[in-house]
Amino acid sequence: MSRRGIEKNVKPARAWVPSHITGFFAAHRREEPHLSGSVGCGLCLSSGAFTMAEPAQELERTEIFLNGVKSEAPVSRFVAERLAGNRGPVRLRTELEMPFGAGFGASGAGALGAAYALNHCFDLGLTANQAAAVAHEAEVTFRTGLGDVIAQNCGGLVVRLQPGAPGTGVIDRIPVSPIAISYVVHGPISTKEVLSDEKMMKAVNAAGEEALKELLKKPTLANFMLLSRRFTVQSGLASHWALQAIEAVEAAGGAASMIMLGDAVFAWGGESEEALKDFGEVHTTTISQRGANLD
Amino acid sequence: MSRRGIEKNVKPARAWVPSHITGFFAAHRREEPHLSGSVGCGLCLSSGAFTMAEPAQELERTEIFLNGVKSEAPVSRFVAERLAGNRGPVRLRTELEMPFGAGFGASGAGALGAAYALNHCFDLGLTANQAAAVAHEAEVTFRTGLGDVIAQNCGGLVVRLQPGAPGTGVIDRIPVSPIAISYVVHGPISTKEVLSDEKMMKAVNAAGEEALKELLKKPTLANFMLLSRRFTVQSGLASHWALQAIEAVEAAGGAASMIMLGDAVFAWGGESEEALKDFGEVHTTTISQRGANLD
Repeated sequence: MSRRGIEKNVKPARAWVPSHITGFFAAHRREEPHLSGSVGCGLCLSSGAFTMAEPAQELERTEIFLNGVKSEAPVSRFVAERLAGNRGPVRLRTELEMPFGAGFGASGAGALGAAYALNHCFDLGLTANQAAAVAHEAEVTFRTGLGDVIAQNCGGLVVRLQPGAPGTGVIDRIPVSPIAISYVVHGPISTKEVLSDEKMMKAVNAAGEEALKELLKKPTLANFMLLSRRFTVQSGLASHWALQAIEAVEAAGGAASMIMLGDAVFAWGGESEEALKDFGEVHTTTISQRGANLD
Repeated sequence: MSRRGIEKNVKPARAWVPSHITGFFAAHRREEPHLSGSVGCGLCLSSGAFTMAEPAQELERTEIFLNGVKSEAPVSRFVAERLAGNRGPVRLRTELEMPFGAGFGASGAGALGAAYALNHCFDLGLTANQAAAVAHEAEVTFRTGLGDVIAQNCGGLVVRLQPGAPGTGVIDRIPVSPIAISYVVHGPISTKEVLSDEKMMKAVNAAGEEALKELLKKPTLANFMLLSRRFTVQSGLASHWALQAIEAVEAAGGAASMIMLGDAVFAWGGESEEALKDFGEVHTTTISQRGANLD
């Protein structure tokens, strides 16, 4: 077989990752990063992130650009160091279609995209789960996320049944059409701060485990929304702004909840897009049924 | 929350499933259908199957239409009986974009689509894996397939590491771009006949286990093609026609292999589409990165 003929068809090393918004969760921290993670449930959205990787021998140090701006990006840098540290500096460029720091899994998307792109770029021979496990470890290490990567690697409405990295944690999906999801972002919440607040995490975890148990009795999108909304209040994470936005959507015949972790609200059904307009700039995307992959 | 508002947004119960072509495999039969299956590797393709489910109380017996024609469709009927047997007759309509009986996982696609559509139609509260496990069991019971359903449920280039139904078997993916795949179908091979031929299955299984071991050393699309092509010969399943088509693609700078199980060849790269034209009507589709889901 002509290898040249095949290699001509290899695309540039560019990966795509959906955003991921968690509706409810409970954190599970272990010593080993690949056993750490969270259980819960969240939605992958078509507003995603593209990451391009290329060797850059001319550089002294790996360069990472986030939306065109040079960035320290410690989570993606961890992935680059782990996967390509012995191959000289690389250049990573991530373009986000999603907000940053508002619970859309942007850091996970950047790290996961970097893992896929570097794997392809350097022909590292990692499977999807193996590449994604490195991104998960980066997130857990920097406390930027606990469950985004395993969900983003799958796509759809993902239930995280047992915590851990892709290939270790256990997930399932709830069947769902690629329907429209609207959202409004009010401001960021620091994932790191919440995850480090022991008292707050106690309430979060109790509410999250309860919601998961309830969801598995009736795993549907409507029930996911209902339980997420309940978790928003029970966990103590809800802002006054978020509760008002959620109620406005409900009054318009839709369902809404807070994005975990961001001061942001997502909604579907009824006149939810219209109802959210009083609370900020409304963006509308769709559920992404596909997960991370090469672009 | 207004439930009416949400239910207005529920779409009709229609599911979509990609086709799936296996490059190599080894069969693992057990007493329990959910532990039976195969290991190996195959590609999900965007030419898929749509299945619509609706209650049909006016009928004496469940009706199944395949491409508009009333059909016995025992595999899909098994799924309907298992999931909705106590809810009166239903009507299932499956429209295939893929060939039937040529190794594209058409029976699995019909069964899996029926499971998703019935789950939604009757609000059965099954997760994706739970619905898909019923379709897997139907395939194993009727010997129409061993590994299509678990791969179709995931999407992409799927490695089947341990046999079993979705949720029981273990899979991983090989990262892959949604590149073009061309194929030509010469004729059908009866999956049932091959799977029931003990002598033939001995050669198939030895070649399949060997190919899987090699693939995991370097899990890439190019290596998948190479190992599939080797399996085609080593398994004894290759037809003279298929080998000629594969060689023509290779001479044109592409990579090709036989579809398991069908007298059909798939190819990518180089001038493969052109090269296949001497062997029949060429169809070109793309790799589907998404798996089965509601439409």
